[in-house]
Amino acid sequence: MKLPLGYRYSAVYAGIRKGKQNDLALIVPDTPASAAAVFTQNRVQAAPVRIGRFNLTKSRGLVSAVLINAGNANCATRTGDRVALACCDAVAKHLHIPPEQVFPSSTGVIGVELDQHLIVNALPELVRGLSKDRFEDAARAILTTDTVMKTAREQARLRQGMVHIAGMTKGAGMIQPNMATTLGFVVMDAAIPAASLSSMLSAAAKRSYNRISVDGDTSTNDTVLLLANGASGVQPSQREIKKVEEAVTLVMEDLARQIVRDGEGARKLVTIEVSGAASEEAADRIARSIANSPLVKTAIAGSDPNWGRILSAAGNAGVPLDPAKVDIDLQGVAVCRGGVAAEFSESDLKKKLDETECLIQVVLHGKGRGSARFWTCDLTEKYIEINASYRT
Amino acid sequence: MKLPLGYRYSAVYAGIRKGKQNDLALIVPDTPASAAAVFTQNRVQAAPVRIGRFNLTKSRGLVSAVLINAGNANCATRTGDRVALACCDAVAKHLHIPPEQVFPSSTGVIGVELDQHLIVNALPELVRGLSKDRFEDAARAILTTDTVMKTAREQARLRQGMVHIAGMTKGAGMIQPNMATTLGFVVMDAAIPAASLSSMLSAAAKRSYNRISVDGDTSTNDTVLLLANGASGVQPSQREIKKVEEAVTLVMEDLARQIVRDGEGARKLVTIEVSGAASEEAADRIARSIANSPLVKTAIAGSDPNWGRILSAAGNAGVPLDPAKVDIDLQGVAVCRGGVAAEFSESDLKKKLDETECLIQVVLHGKGRGSARFWTCDLTEKYIEINASYRT
Repeated sequence: MKLPLGYRYSAVYAGIRKGKQNDLALIVPDTPASAAAVFTQNRVQAAPVRIGRFNLTKSRGLVSAVLINAGNANCATRTGDRVALACCDAVAKHLHIPPEQVFPSSTGVIGVELDQHLIVNALPELVRGLSKDRFEDAARAILTTDTVMKTAREQARLRQGMVHIAGMTKGAGMIQPNMATTLGFVVMDAAIPAASLSSMLSAAAKRSYNRISVDGDTSTNDTVLLLANGASGVQPSQREIKKVEEAVTLVMEDLARQIVRDGEGARKLVTIEVSGAASEEAADRIARSIANSPLVKTAIAGSDPNWGRILSAAGNAGVPLDPAKVDIDLQGVAVCRGGVAAEFSESDLKKKLDETECLIQVVLHGKGRGSARFWTCDLTEKYIEINASYRT
Repeated sequence: MKLPLGYRYSAVYAGIRKGKQNDLALIVPDTPASAAAVFTQNRVQAAPVRIGRFNLTKSRGLVSAVLINAGNANCATRTGDRVALACCDAVAKHLHIPPEQVFPSSTGVIGVELDQHLIVNALPELVRGLSKDRFEDAARAILTTDTVMKTAREQARLRQGMVHIAGMTKGAGMIQPNMATTLGFVVMDAAIPAASLSSMLSAAAKRSYNRISVDGDTSTNDTVLLLANGASGVQPSQREIKKVEEAVTLVMEDLARQIVRDGEGARKLVTIEVSGAASEEAADRIARSIANSPLVKTAIAGSDPNWGRILSAAGNAGVPLDPAKVDIDLQGVAVCRGGVAAEFSESDLKKKLDETECLIQVVLHGKGRGSARFWTCDLTEKYIEINASYRT
């Protein structure tokens, strides 16, 4: 599938992280793009989150450059805002654009001052390197403890023609030893005003990034940015916006699943489907409670069909639930019917749970039709090893 | 310290669990005791929780026997209520007491039918074995994956004389591979009506059992029961009730800390103190968020003074918080001042974090004076090993 028209990308090694892997990326639309962003709900927010939000307001939702660094979150530091603003200024000068049209983003260690000179000094090479073919170079430069690059593409055929969507993300779950950061950047070439883009992004995030968890920790830097530069010349009609939103959701869902699949120490991607709840929100809360239960996640790691833990986690979601009406399936096998054990072969199911994808289906048989899908990963010794040994 | 007057205890092996360790315990006050209980908030509740609550209401807060089994939670089973009621009936016949004055309690695997005959057949020996000296036998019989027995004692000198309080509990954290259950039984010899006992237990639970967490999972069987049989002949005055409440709180706090210290795979007991919050509830939520963060818990396991994770977890508690006013101390060492790094020797602090007790102090410098203490444990590879390998 083709990349969106009208974007250039670049990446360099600026010396922010210790390894020799690129740690600075730039995304530049040929013309100012409409933009929308969603940010972390953490009360502790990194400087780039504050400045990014400020710039989007000041520019009325226009972005002409996205500057991303890995290796330092620029969070809980004395000089945070100043550094983020200085970097935006420097990019603006190089590209001859207003500073408020630069969107900054950082990921990495919290509480360590970020040296702005490392970034400013790397800018000339970064700008020189801009090319429409370097999408994957940028995608690789934003990674931290990720073991694989994470990108996704979609397209949508509209009346006026085809629009293209591409996204990149980072994160080994919400959790990371040093950085606890998830970032996502989705670019497309449709012509869509910032206001519609904003509601589109909220709807898509709700069913993708907001539906994954490794351990329930929300970072100080979480950001997902959506750009639309109109380079395709295609302006979706009011009715077609929904179609674009679906394609954007697919890209973001794909990226979100890649994060969970690469969760630290994870061997299995776990999909949780809850249905028959009073509302979508109730279904989401039950799925989330199951996804965040270490007892469920360790059972999956051990291929243990321990449905009692799933039922108990569902009961802990803080929403009404009648256990006598709950059915649970694991890998398509009925393990619980009406809140009590179903008959199944434990050894057969154990084998099925050894696969790298695991499906938990919970049907509540309540009065409502609320349903939700949620993704998580198993919890293994490797997770502890990675997170306990950092800095040592 | 002496045990409360007027209680007898017993324990036998009834064949409910596989090991040959006693799995059935009985606590009998010489005369009907005033009783209060707090139960799990999980929407999925075990049969003994339902029947225990029902009996307490029917008997108007009088308990003449407590029957506890380990090895089977009697939860999510077809015959749960019937089995619990039949066991209460059998105990009542043996002791010539009304069945509603029997309080049942179970801990163990969820979703497996409990064979009432195992319990009924063991009752004659259990009743024969009743003795005022077998407190610790009973305390050992209720354990499951616990590595140590957990008891605590206190006394309070009142105007009319001394009252004695003793408690036993089980649980290796809230979490347990098979059973996910915490039970606590506190007996005393003061003469206190059930109504006062109930508010006393709520207040004490709030600052003890409700302030511990291993992984945030609430089980289907959690129960803490408080009995007062009046055998000391001491009837606390209205003003002295507070003094008894303090002693009860000390016992329950002691028991709760023992649970966390014995948390599965745990090597360290972590105390979290939050102060300067808008309210006690806000302080509690922030302490709880820190206690439940796997990133914080793995950092403690690795003796890593990673205060950024603590600040981030505090920011995730869902209560207002100004990061610029947050101070954090680890083992008494200032690591964060005003939301940014303080100067400290990382290698010195690392050594201090190797100790088996760890203290995290967070001062919010807000307008309020709300404070809370909370206990948790570190998260190690051993935890995963225990919980992933169950049943296999």
